[in-house]
Amino acid sequence: MCELLGMSANVPTDIVFSFTGLMQRGGRTGPHRDGWGIAFYEGKGLRLFQDPAASAESEVARLVQRYPIKSEVVIGHIRQANVGRVCLANTHPFIRELWGRNWCFAHNGQLAGLDTTPGFYRPVGDTDSEAAFCDLLNRIRSTFPEPVPVEALLPTLVEACADYRRKGVFNCLLSDGDWLFSFCTTKLAHITRRAPFGPARLKDAELTVDFQAETTPNDVVTVLATEPLTTNETWSLYQPGDWSLWRNGECIAQGRREPDAISETTP
Amino acid sequence: MCELLGMSANVPTDIVFSFTGLMQRGGRTGPHRDGWGIAFYEGKGLRLFQDPAASAESEVARLVQRYPIKSEVVIGHIRQANVGRVCLANTHPFIRELWGRNWCFAHNGQLAGLDTTPGFYRPVGDTDSEAAFCDLLNRIRSTFPEPVPVEALLPTLVEACADYRRKGVFNCLLSDGDWLFSFCTTKLAHITRRAPFGPARLKDAELTVDFQAETTPNDVVTVLATEPLTTNETWSLYQPGDWSLWRNGECIAQGRREPDAISETTP
Repeated sequence: MCELLGMSANVPTDIVFSFTGLMQRGGRTGPHRDGWGIAFYEGKGLRLFQDPAASAESEVARLVQRYPIKSEVVIGHIRQANVGRVCLANTHPFIRELWGRNWCFAHNGQLAGLDTTPGFYRPVGDTDSEAAFCDLLNRIRSTFPEPVPVEALLPTLVEACADYRRKGVFNCLLSDGDWLFSFCTTKLAHITRRAPFGPARLKDAELTVDFQAETTPNDVVTVLATEPLTTNETWSLYQPGDWSLWRNGECIAQGRREPDAISETTP
Repeated sequence: MCELLGMSANVPTDIVFSFTGLMQRGGRTGPHRDGWGIAFYEGKGLRLFQDPAASAESEVARLVQRYPIKSEVVIGHIRQANVGRVCLANTHPFIRELWGRNWCFAHNGQLAGLDTTPGFYRPVGDTDSEAAFCDLLNRIRSTFPEPVPVEALLPTLVEACADYRRKGVFNCLLSDGDWLFSFCTTKLAHITRRAPFGPARLKDAELTVDFQAETTPNDVVTVLATEPLTTNETWSLYQPGDWSLWRNGECIAQGRREPDAISETTP
């Protein structure tokens, strides 16, 4: 299994605090030693830092912790390999260009029996996760050859996630740099921080931050993670089938896809 | 204009020495202040470090200098913007997946009047360089929907480069992680280092390295750059129309595309 980290904010925000917590789970407080990655959007551009080494011992991870990169959308991941060997090509998040935008995807879980008909997008590595991402983009592309607003895309996204869920565990984060989408089949949590800001204390490291000192009253910052990263705040836990869509730190759509309802309505 | 750096080697090799020289030209010994990037292949995986800040002052560039990443194929670039504003999305090298491999491209020059018919691959930023890269991949994809060996691809590659050359200056580096291709219309040089190795002295920084101490007798390492990076070695300079193809540090094909011959043979 793996762990996910996502952020959506209405101002460029550094995620060093949450990242520091997550990185400990890559070999120190957690068993996810098989690589890590984090992608920061800067406008339509995307900075990706990755390492197949354990995050708790990674030189590149230390750079990311020392050098605060401000971003409005972030997707991070630490890996405990199940499908696919430990190497850079198998390290999340995965990136592809669709409609002239960088799409970024990370997955927690395990899928069996994915249809791997070669489509336009093809996996570079050999993980089930990248295969699912390519399949998802191939579906989107064949349904919508030209760009559509994310609201029009949502039914396709949710339907694809419901399909992957039938093949195993599929907690995921997806973004095109404008919005951030999540789907939960077993474990995912979120917290939205806004004024009045208070202190937060990490669960995985001896670190407390006072967000009051680092924010303005208008800032809205949502963080998503496989499990809550702090001990003194209340995180909302998603239920199986819950999906959410975020822009500028705010939830702009959410819902629950019941497995039974799916099997009744899907041919 | 910009500057290019490429490497092809038969063993994983760090490029810190050449990178250190190139980075000086990004604001110290050269005017290329508008961002830089470098991509290191690790198998089929690709590590990309980029920054829209001047390389001579970039924190991420300092990491790359401190932390030797060993790779068999590298493409680097420093930018002096002409088309497209200074931002991450306009920073070379550019990456796309084709046939389940990461393709990487960097360009030195300026193109006018490119055909920008939207194809499958679309630019994320607004540089002429990324538009040419997308056009090149669209041509390859439409000619070869399924993977072919690079030898079969060469005529398409060279023909596309000859077309771009008609629209301006087009010095470029391209790789899929296995081979490294170059095309020169104005400025490009290369050097192949093999036993017996000797010392090399950078042109742009007070730095000498003794490759003898860092290599084995079987190592073969070719470096390509817009202009020679060292003062005590003999670099081979390419002429307009020269292209070359490298694998494991060795040149596996090369040729010259004469502009007159092109206009006579192309309808």
